Amino acid sequence: MKKINLLGATGSIGTQTLEIVREHPELFEIAALSFGRNVELGRKIIQEFKPKLVSVQNKRDLDGLRAEFPGIKFYYGLEGLREVAAYQEGEVLLSAVIGSVGLLPTLDAIEAGKQIAIANKETLVTAGHLVVEAARKKKVPLLPVDSEHSAIFQALNGEKRANVAKLIITASGGSFRDKTRQELRNVTVKEALNHPNWSMGNKLTIDSATMFNKGLEVIEAHWLYEMDYDDIEVLIHRESIVHSLVEYIDGSMIAQLGAPDMRIPIQYALTYPERAEMSFPKRFSLAEIGALHFEEVDYERFTALKLAYNAGKIGGTMPTVLNAANEIAVAGFFKRTS
Amino acid sequence: MKKINLLGATGSIGTQTLEIVREHPELFEIAALSFGRNVELGRKIIQEFKPKLVSVQNKRDLDGLRAEFPGIKFYYGLEGLREVAAYQEGEVLLSAVIGSVGLLPTLDAIEAGKQIAIANKETLVTAGHLVVEAARKKKVPLLPVDSEHSAIFQALNGEKRANVAKLIITASGGSFRDKTRQELRNVTVKEALNHPNWSMGNKLTIDSATMFNKGLEVIEAHWLYEMDYDDIEVLIHRESIVHSLVEYIDGSMIAQLGAPDMRIPIQYALTYPERAEMSFPKRFSLAEIGALHFEEVDYERFTALKLAYNAGKIGGTMPTVLNAANEIAVAGFFKRTS
Repeated sequence: MKKINLLGATGSIGTQTLEIVREHPELFEIAALSFGRNVELGRKIIQEFKPKLVSVQNKRDLDGLRAEFPGIKFYYGLEGLREVAAYQEGEVLLSAVIGSVGLLPTLDAIEAGKQIAIANKETLVTAGHLVVEAARKKKVPLLPVDSEHSAIFQALNGEKRANVAKLIITASGGSFRDKTRQELRNVTVKEALNHPNWSMGNKLTIDSATMFNKGLEVIEAHWLYEMDYDDIEVLIHRESIVHSLVEYIDGSMIAQLGAPDMRIPIQYALTYPERAEMSFPKRFSLAEIGALHFEEVDYERFTALKLAYNAGKIGGTMPTVLNAANEIAVAGFFKRTS
Repeated sequence: MKKINLLGATGSIGTQTLEIVREHPELFEIAALSFGRNVELGRKIIQEFKPKLVSVQNKRDLDGLRAEFPGIKFYYGLEGLREVAAYQEGEVLLSAVIGSVGLLPTLDAIEAGKQIAIANKETLVTAGHLVVEAARKKKVPLLPVDSEHSAIFQALNGEKRANVAKLIITASGGSFRDKTRQELRNVTVKEALNHPNWSMGNKLTIDSATMFNKGLEVIEAHWLYEMDYDDIEVLIHRESIVHSLVEYIDGSMIAQLGAPDMRIPIQYALTYPERAEMSFPKRFSLAEIGALHFEEVDYERFTALKLAYNAGKIGGTMPTVLNAANEIAVAGFFKRTS
């Protein structure tokens, strides 16, 4: 039985994590969790998963919840996230909050010796050097939850790092991959949120349309796998079936592939080094998909990706600056009413 | 330095093995080798690789070779193959002879505690139960050289066997994949030898056109990976880039892919669990290939594959019977003059 401290329980990754826990009561249990402003969903989750400790975003939600769930300890804000992350009963932290608020709780959990399943990109993008170094000192594994990093992680199984030549991160190209930069001028929020392959949170779907997200993933891969930026490539793969690849020095490539279903990498992060059964509406079939396509990235079209490589190579606080600039830009885009 | 006993040095796999040894004098050395009737090439190979023990197919070639290479021990025939296979200085046997003549030498090498790199299909098809059992007893690894089995072997790296759901063996469909059974009636030997993707020996190219070869691979996979026939699938993949896949119980698939270049699996069998650099005329690029296609096998069109599944499931000597019948059929086909 693995006990999980879950940050961001009501988000896209959070709810899919809870689906996995629901499917495997013999394997997993939620020890502590946090959620933000979706208190209604949060209450349902508490009722079902019975965590011992809960943190909410706003102080004003505390009294009602405490009255309703007298056996549970409640916290709020960043301090609350840190309580959840380091909660002693949890063996693994699954960090699925959005934004740089995920950093301190992750460092706390590492300090407390917990395995870290990372879905929060900012943790590695803004402070990869700190997180990787802390995890190494404490000998805790950093388990990627992103489909791309999970694919690389799986493709590295049983292999020696010295034999890795390149990491190849695949990218669907997002909602607007067939539009020119000119055509992008008047796109709506609704159009942007219509991702062709993946069901994800809103911010992530926008970052996918600009491929800024892929840029963050390149920076994350740099830290997670200690690879030079020159040895990390991005490859457009429209179908999102091959989730990423590792190329070895002998020319052999190992890829992880399958349905574009986030439950697979989430569960893998929780079961690693084991695997567990997963139920699907129907069996995934390559023959049914028929063809997988691959193309080079156009860095002029997807400027955000180029910026991310540049920021990563510059290093220091530059990825944090880039990430903050993007957060503001995306928030601005969401304010579009047209 | 790994010392190799090489059976079948002048064949397609043999010469590519020698290329690898030539590229990596710091890693490999040929301890002993055998060749068949191509004495001219055999002499050149002896001059270059300086084995200490050599076996030839025909007794009549012995005297000339002994006179020319007084420092080398020469043998001939099946006894000679057995001497090469079990030659004490070799640490690994690479068995690349064609036909069931490969069986006894392989059992000898297992008995002598050598690692076994298997390119000889008949060894597993006709006596998989004996070979697998002997290797288990002696704790020697059976390292596949076939691109498909090597792909599966690589895709199993670091994974637990209990978590494997299916093996998926890819198949190009061979030279005649777009012909109907009716259109096959008048094909020539020359047409049959024109394989779209791989450069292989003649018998193998014919077995690829009929997909009989894929049937042998299914039987080999059954033995190598101890999988039920119902959990081994064949998937048509025209480009021969994805060399095979393993599907796990969580829906995740791991594939090994890359250029259709037999040197990759041959070298991997020799370096395992390590890898070594390999030089290519140009870097392999998925973007350049553009698309990978997958389709179901038509078992009515490729009857030989269906026969192989049936023979495998019946077990006992049935795969041997099937294989012998095919050897005779292929020999008959080669006698066609049109």
